[in-house]
Amino acid sequence: MSKDIRNLWYVAALSTEIADGPVGRRICSLPVVLYRERSGAVAALFDRCPHRFVPLSRGRCEGDRLVCGYHGLAYDGAGKCVANPQGTVTRSLDVRSFPVEERHGLVWIWMGDPALRDTVAIPDFSLLDRPAMRPQYGYMWTAAHFELMTDNIMDLSHIEFLHADTLGTEKIRDAKVQARVEGETVYSGRTVHDEILPPFLEGSFQTGGRPVTRSLSVRWNAPALMLLTVGVDPAGPEKAPRETFNMHFITPETSTTCHYFWAATRPYGPDDPEWDRRLREGLERAFRTEDKPMIEAQQLVTGEADLLDLKPALFRGDGAAIHARRILTQLRRAEEEA
Amino acid sequence: MSKDIRNLWYVAALSTEIADGPVGRRICSLPVVLYRERSGAVAALFDRCPHRFVPLSRGRCEGDRLVCGYHGLAYDGAGKCVANPQGTVTRSLDVRSFPVEERHGLVWIWMGDPALRDTVAIPDFSLLDRPAMRPQYGYMWTAAHFELMTDNIMDLSHIEFLHADTLGTEKIRDAKVQARVEGETVYSGRTVHDEILPPFLEGSFQTGGRPVTRSLSVRWNAPALMLLTVGVDPAGPEKAPRETFNMHFITPETSTTCHYFWAATRPYGPDDPEWDRRLREGLERAFRTEDKPMIEAQQLVTGEADLLDLKPALFRGDGAAIHARRILTQLRRAEEEA
Amino acid sequence: MSKDIRNLWYVAALSTEIADGPVGRRICSLPVVLYRERSGAVAALFDRCPHRFVPLSRGRCEGDRLVCGYHGLAYDGAGKCVANPQGTVTRSLDVRSFPVEERHGLVWIWMGDPALRDTVAIPDFSLLDRPAMRPQYGYMWTAAHFELMTDNIMDLSHIEFLHADTLGTEKIRDAKVQARVEGETVYSGRTVHDEILPPFLEGSFQTGGRPVTRSLSVRWNAPALMLLTVGVDPAGPEKAPRETFNMHFITPETSTTCHYFWAATRPYGPDDPEWDRRLREGLERAFRTEDKPMIEAQQLVTGEADLLDLKPALFRGDGAAIHARRILTQLRRAEEEA
Repeated sequence: MSKDIRNLWYVAALSTEIADGPVGRRICSLPVVLYRERSGAVAALFDRCPHRFVPLSRGRCEGDRLVCGYHGLAYDGAGKCVANPQGTVTRSLDVRSFPVEERHGLVWIWMGDPALRDTVAIPDFSLLDRPAMRPQYGYMWTAAHFELMTDNIMDLSHIEFLHADTLGTEKIRDAKVQARVEGETVYSGRTVHDEILPPFLEGSFQTGGRPVTRSLSVRWNAPALMLLTVGVDPAGPEKAPRETFNMHFITPETSTTCHYFWAATRPYGPDDPEWDRRLREGLERAFRTEDKPMIEAQQLVTGEADLLDLKPALFRGDGAAIHARRILTQLRRAEEEA
Repeated sequence: MSKDIRNLWYVAALSTEIADGPVGRRICSLPVVLYRERSGAVAALFDRCPHRFVPLSRGRCEGDRLVCGYHGLAYDGAGKCVANPQGTVTRSLDVRSFPVEERHGLVWIWMGDPALRDTVAIPDFSLLDRPAMRPQYGYMWTAAHFELMTDNIMDLSHIEFLHADTLGTEKIRDAKVQARVEGETVYSGRTVHDEILPPFLEGSFQTGGRPVTRSLSVRWNAPALMLLTVGVDPAGPEKAPRETFNMHFITPETSTTCHYFWAATRPYGPDDPEWDRRLREGLERAFRTEDKPMIEAQQLVTGEADLLDLKPALFRGDGAAIHARRILTQLRRAEEEA
Repeated sequence: MSKDIRNLWYVAALSTEIADGPVGRRICSLPVVLYRERSGAVAALFDRCPHRFVPLSRGRCEGDRLVCGYHGLAYDGAGKCVANPQGTVTRSLDVRSFPVEERHGLVWIWMGDPALRDTVAIPDFSLLDRPAMRPQYGYMWTAAHFELMTDNIMDLSHIEFLHADTLGTEKIRDAKVQARVEGETVYSGRTVHDEILPPFLEGSFQTGGRPVTRSLSVRWNAPALMLLTVGVDPAGPEKAPRETFNMHFITPETSTTCHYFWAATRPYGPDDPEWDRRLREGLERAFRTEDKPMIEAQQLVTGEADLLDLKPALFRGDGAAIHARRILTQLRRAEEEA
């Protein structure tokens, strides 16, 4: 199985997940514990006490310290052991810490060499910082290699089939597909003309049921950070194009499982928590009942193999995902050589 | 572990299982999808889309076509790709199909070389086609190598112990056991004299509680197709022998699991669905609570080994099962050499 | 993974567990079936019928015989086949039996060479035979190597952290720790001064809430037989030291799982079954919700490795457990060389 790329920013958690106590989460196959210091900053440590090897995430926060729940060794947010009720505090008790940035309602973690972390920027998701966008967030664990998730989002031709009853329409079949690479960013796009939006999307766009031109475009950055822009342009003289955004952040847990974080904006419709909830539940349901079982079934077949090594049939719509896979392969090789 | 024999007819499903949508089932370790065409014929394809490797059984039937649920590739019953919304239809998109026969309320599948399928006949189970037999059917997945199931049915000496409370009697202990081979068919038999049938069997035979001579004989054909004839001959001047039939069809799923299909006739007693139900539930309960846990416990011990390689103690009653195992070994070798 | 030591007495069961029917239990990775003969003696046999390899524990007791549930082979308590309804009784049908002693409310089993069993004594737990001690017993399966359980009990410094809400106090932090080896027995001790007992312990000791000196000392013998003596000495002129005892008996099931048996005395307080129940539930809850999840998390990290091979940080409190581990290593080596 291809190794995880370490020198990248990964999403480790939704900001709302890191509140009172420590949270343990495996990222790129490494056990990580996340907790919030009194300043509000999030700390990320290797989730293993060097004494008895129990997860520090089974311990508790005391001020800025994380205290092991078995024998009381205490750590600061840099992984430095600051108290040892069982003996002397020595440097050998320190644990690794990981650089963390909190941005756009997400906790980002750098899994590689801390000295290299400024060489890679977190892509711009500042749309999530605009209150008028009323961003909604979600998380779902998935039993699939994270690149199978990327394939899913970069090839939106599946909407018509997998989401036939929720997001698909007759017209989407005729969409024109494009893929484009700019440096290490991949763009994938499709445009659908003369389409009546299905009810779930009409709820987000409020077009009044008129025929529209719908465009879907995805921006991808490594490892699997995707901004899906859905543009809707109603026909007729009074042109009033509207846009919503869906962000997808996939983080490998192991070589066969991943963490799926998502965010979605809701700039139209009433400022009503009930509408927020409906958006979250609609997206959650589509993923949980349609994408997730299909991708997990695919994982059972591909196993530890790389999908491309199994020689799948490749079509035009797969282009963007293949570009993304190639960039990851390059990054992986560069890291192995370094 | 011994390889599966491919050039044989296996039971893939009860006819009633293949109705509205596609059914995925692993047979001889291969993923198979079964669906019914508009003509009523059952099609069986390799259950994997060549594009993203998802199971075609997660898709849907549209007329005679099976449409992949992920990106819409469509197949006919011969495995030919007949539509590809994502690009060109090419022969490389075709999937393997398996010969199918539907007979006696069962769907039979040929897992080997299609050219050889006429060289092996499906054994005669036409008793199931007689309405007066009021045949009842059932299916149960079992975590055991399929030959352990054959052992169970070919050696009915277990009835007294494993089914002490349902099918066994004191007298069955004295039964005389016979085993006989004719070509590639094995027969196993035992006869019990002066026996009062237990309540469950009395329900099937309606002997009026008189002492009877009970004979049990099993006909076996590869891979594990068994016809058990239970004959009951009441004592006394007015001789009126009665017979019921139990059919057992075991299909390997993997090397440690199998599909157990069964059928049972009910020629006596009232024509009452409640009596049908009672027969089905009685057989189902005996297997689920008595045979299945015992055989699955045996599987946990034997693992991937062939039972005979573990040098079990062998008794007279094991003869028929050993004959059956030998025929399978010959078929397996012949196939490996070919 | 280190091999199990065979020439030792292990606890196989609580006496109360072996009553009506046979009990199957894996001990040192071997399947064992335990049952009680009419004399009251407990028999222990290899839990596998030599005919079909099913567990004899799925059979039933008939007088002093254990009868296989599949085909009726019958065994006496020495593992001798005494009846075979399927054919001749031969010596090749015999199964291995294990020496058993029943003592102190526990069933002890000798897993090694029967000729060597008198060379190792069962340590003295006769406190459990005194009715005034009102001993309480319990059993819990745990997914951890048995030596991780020993570590837990031999290093009571975890009480303050893992049992902060039940058994821990502020004062225990200042306890002085000692470890001592005498032959093949290890002693571990700690003493706490001027301590107010937490409510759960006050229930056992009935000190009236006065400050006390609490001493905890553990006696260990191989494989993992531990007697924890908790002494409480109230301050003040009217000295009246009180003692209760907790016994811990850990038996390996496999290299990553174990059987945890425990016993606890309750010499003080009213002779009331409700108080007995409260003690059992309190100990059971502390182990189930505090120790067990922590030790099982530790097991997930250590896997098949020996903890010491992973180079853990070692502190003063770990001394007693290290002594115990060393004795086991010596016994293991001696057995491998013999």
